[in-house]
Amino acid sequence: MKKEIWIVGMGPGREEMMTAEAVSALEEADVIVGYSTYLRLLPERLREKEQLSTPMRGEKERCMLCFAEAEKGKRVALICSGDAGVYGLASLMFEMGKEHADTALRVIPGVTAANSGAAVLGAPLNHDFCTISLSDLLTPWERIERRLAAAAQGDFVIVLYNPASHKRKDHLKRACEILLSCIEPERPCGLVENIGREGTRAEVCTLRELRDRQVNMFTTVFIGSSGTEIIDGRLVTKRGYQI
Amino acid sequence: MKKEIWIVGMGPGREEMMTAEAVSALEEADVIVGYSTYLRLLPERLREKEQLSTPMRGEKERCMLCFAEAEKGKRVALICSGDAGVYGLASLMFEMGKEHADTALRVIPGVTAANSGAAVLGAPLNHDFCTISLSDLLTPWERIERRLAAAAQGDFVIVLYNPASHKRKDHLKRACEILLSCIEPERPCGLVENIGREGTRAEVCTLRELRDRQVNMFTTVFIGSSGTEIIDGRLVTKRGYQI
Repeated sequence: MKKEIWIVGMGPGREEMMTAEAVSALEEADVIVGYSTYLRLLPERLREKEQLSTPMRGEKERCMLCFAEAEKGKRVALICSGDAGVYGLASLMFEMGKEHADTALRVIPGVTAANSGAAVLGAPLNHDFCTISLSDLLTPWERIERRLAAAAQGDFVIVLYNPASHKRKDHLKRACEILLSCIEPERPCGLVENIGREGTRAEVCTLRELRDRQVNMFTTVFIGSSGTEIIDGRLVTKRGYQI
Repeated sequence: MKKEIWIVGMGPGREEMMTAEAVSALEEADVIVGYSTYLRLLPERLREKEQLSTPMRGEKERCMLCFAEAEKGKRVALICSGDAGVYGLASLMFEMGKEHADTALRVIPGVTAANSGAAVLGAPLNHDFCTISLSDLLTPWERIERRLAAAAQGDFVIVLYNPASHKRKDHLKRACEILLSCIEPERPCGLVENIGREGTRAEVCTLRELRDRQVNMFTTVFIGSSGTEIIDGRLVTKRGYQI
């Protein structure tokens, strides 16, 4: 029997924001593997399936579980929030897949926080943008600083993932200070907390104000480019149409 | 009656790759407005609805149509391929919405080509990435060049949208030449044509090879970062896990 693992992006959490393809994969799976926070967001009927989880930072073990379950002949779906290919486990699965050549890996894309958060705020990503994770668990902070500087230099809209955690309370402040060295303090910015879940909170503010905002690991942060404006309370990056 | 327009990202085209929220919006709409190529991709049952279209480059007129139809009391859905907030019409709608303060605009996010194309290739976006459109219809070419240089400087994975059109046949070549001035020619890259539609074609190659590839307006191009590798024919950007 052909062994196959589906690596599924579940979007922000609500079933309506998953693609039909992602829902089908979860429905057809014998076992769903994921981080417990996201397993709990699944709709009732899917929560009755066999579910396997590992604690936070147990990503390697979570991937190993997938291969072990596939080995037993089960249809396995690994879920990640947003898109599994954006700061999710897709690449680690491909890396570990080298040892499991007989297991096919298929990525099912989902709506990542950059896109779902943008939709809540208005249309901040309507021109060239980049995403930067402020987590220095796996990336040296110097590289993050270098990317922030380059993104500002290139006048990209910037989306910050993982802007804070329990241990990294000041990363957003540090990032804003780097950006403020070449972006004006009045630059329009925005943030969204708990996108597509209970307690969604969105706010637009300036870069200077953003520097002092308290954020958590469920916040996604948007820094406008030179083409970004606030229109009726929405964060909008113009594409250049003459109107 | 409250006037509302849904700005809907339809993903790459197949219904299975739309979110349930996007499908519902189209089902509930009285009229669906969009570019004819994308209207034709809609499932049969939705094609029976009233549809309105304007030719390519008639974006402003398409947005005006939406407001005019909403004015008549109709429920309007404007569809864009991928995510309407990424090189789509969401921001133009908000700009034009200034003149239609009584019409609420709601963006329903979708899976953009960066994410759907990445899933076909493997996991190239699994670390910081940026998107750059090579279309100079609305953006001066100098700004595009500046962004390419900054993206290479920041060691981002780069996704190129609109890498060519009938009139701009050499833009990908010119972009690759800029990138080759600071990225090694062997850097892993990839391209996907007709993502999620009939005739999907994916290829991995080096940056040097990419320079001479023929692409069209339905191609999305991926240039790896220093952390990108080809693993079993898939384009994979490592996140930094020790395995």
